[in-house]
Amino acid sequence: MQSNQPIAVLGGGSFGSVIANMMAEKNLPVRLWMRDQEKADVLNSTRENARYLPGYSLAPSLEATADLAYALESARLVFVSIPSSAFRSVVAEAAPFLRDGQLLVSTTKGIEADTFCLMSDILKQEVPNAKVGVLSGPNLAKEIAQRQLAATVIASEDEEVRAQVQALLHSPYFRVYASTDTYGVELGGTLKNIYAIAAGLSAALGMGENTRSMLVTRSLAEMSRFAVSMGANPMTFLGLAGVGDLIVTCMSPLSRNYRVGYALGEGKSLDEAVSVLGEVAEGVNTLKQVRDKSIEKDIYMPLVCGLYDVVFKGLPVKEVARNMMLNVQSTDVEFVLARSEVVS
Amino acid sequence: MQSNQPIAVLGGGSFGSVIANMMAEKNLPVRLWMRDQEKADVLNSTRENARYLPGYSLAPSLEATADLAYALESARLVFVSIPSSAFRSVVAEAAPFLRDGQLLVSTTKGIEADTFCLMSDILKQEVPNAKVGVLSGPNLAKEIAQRQLAATVIASEDEEVRAQVQALLHSPYFRVYASTDTYGVELGGTLKNIYAIAAGLSAALGMGENTRSMLVTRSLAEMSRFAVSMGANPMTFLGLAGVGDLIVTCMSPLSRNYRVGYALGEGKSLDEAVSVLGEVAEGVNTLKQVRDKSIEKDIYMPLVCGLYDVVFKGLPVKEVARNMMLNVQSTDVEFVLARSEVVS
Repeated sequence: MQSNQPIAVLGGGSFGSVIANMMAEKNLPVRLWMRDQEKADVLNSTRENARYLPGYSLAPSLEATADLAYALESARLVFVSIPSSAFRSVVAEAAPFLRDGQLLVSTTKGIEADTFCLMSDILKQEVPNAKVGVLSGPNLAKEIAQRQLAATVIASEDEEVRAQVQALLHSPYFRVYASTDTYGVELGGTLKNIYAIAAGLSAALGMGENTRSMLVTRSLAEMSRFAVSMGANPMTFLGLAGVGDLIVTCMSPLSRNYRVGYALGEGKSLDEAVSVLGEVAEGVNTLKQVRDKSIEKDIYMPLVCGLYDVVFKGLPVKEVARNMMLNVQSTDVEFVLARSEVVS
Repeated sequence: MQSNQPIAVLGGGSFGSVIANMMAEKNLPVRLWMRDQEKADVLNSTRENARYLPGYSLAPSLEATADLAYALESARLVFVSIPSSAFRSVVAEAAPFLRDGQLLVSTTKGIEADTFCLMSDILKQEVPNAKVGVLSGPNLAKEIAQRQLAATVIASEDEEVRAQVQALLHSPYFRVYASTDTYGVELGGTLKNIYAIAAGLSAALGMGENTRSMLVTRSLAEMSRFAVSMGANPMTFLGLAGVGDLIVTCMSPLSRNYRVGYALGEGKSLDEAVSVLGEVAEGVNTLKQVRDKSIEKDIYMPLVCGLYDVVFKGLPVKEVARNMMLNVQSTDVEFVLARSEVVS
């Protein structure tokens, strides 16, 4: 790899900014694309992304730009950190500027409405010859910006993508592990947003530590069951992109998904919850897609179905929550004991 | 089963008291044995275990006693909730009063010094014809006393033990799942005490959510690796007695193990930490036993070895903690990618 080739990061939100800056701090040339040239200019002159990461100094070799062609020009690798609702349109816009065999890595977790495409699927569809990877793990951007020790997973079937991302992002406070289970890693990051809603909801209902950890355990079982039905490797869910990301999202009251769940638990409707937050949380869309898919493929997902009833059908939250907990499953780990042996 | 036969619970600590009372609330006759007759008398007259569960009313059919023969007389099932240091001596004392084929269930997590016996091993050795089980899961006694929804696992190779414990303890707020992996369930409950020390230590060092969830993920990987090497079922660690109990113990700052870790993280020595707490935390003993066993059996346990260096060798906590985090393992989930494919 040639270290004078710039790296492109599409999306100037908190996560895009922090990974761009981690590389810039290693004196690598980084171009951070954002939609608005005025905001890019402010960022370049103040050396700060005041909206998302106030007080976090941006290293000199990070350059913000709203010029997509310039951002992508001879890019060694492109990270895409665009919200799922705009993901396809930005990637389509970028495609003409990408070279054959371009390395492309998504950091976005979500499922496209109607198509059930994950973000890596969109990358493959819009840029057919690209080498694609996904980055996922317990990675709160604000804590990475504080240089708190963290770890992530780069998943790709392509060896070059894995090696490049490890080399680019690895640092004394940021560990990058590799996986070949792209689908499992990406699905883990996506599904956990649903269970963060459930965690917020249970917190609003005053449920204690025993209940919360029971809920996280059940969430892990349910997301693994779904992912395995879709072709992922179950062992992925024992790792950072599975249980690791699930814990950080379900235990951190700051995430948007958790806050939607909390508002629902207080008896607010989805519209009321969303109006307080100002935007729809990713997990709400994911919930709808996954619930429909679980019915289509006949996958047992009592937490997803219960949450759906609360969020989209307005069923009374206390009753549904109680039923979700009680009826989740009749064995602890389904593979250990047959159901018939258990009192339900 | 005959419902007029009493159930015995040995040990009047918080967990023994709460399971005794859950059964008494179902109008089952329960005899709660404790060493001191005076304390038993106070408990019987005040209907409260003021030391461990203040404000928690004990149901009329719970009777406290210091008379072991009386407590065990024609007992339908015996729960043993005695700290590991006194476990064998109490069980040996009880053995003459137990019938052939007695149902015996341990709720204690620990490893006997020098023998590496778990509590169920001690039950089998001291009462050779008993039918033995273990109860384990994310079960903070204080929250169960508040009737917060919780779930637990009864593990036994004996069908009668599983069915009886499910019938005796099951209630609208307490779910009892069954498992046949006695060793895995018991080892999960035991090993988690070690990682609670690590969690407390990392909190004292000001580590953030990303780091904590990374630590819990690594802890889960390490405890599974050890347990599987010892013959347990890896799937057990995806359930309540594995990840469920680990989360509640590592996230709850009230546990004795967590507090020892916190004190160590503040730079205190083990002696200082123990003198603040008034007694040695179970995890400290477990740490020593497991570290020795991991060396004997050549099982890779960097967290256990790092903690051992801090606790027993007095190595500087900050350096060791950082090394523990950084050197934990070179792949995310060891089964997904070969080590040689990963940048370390």
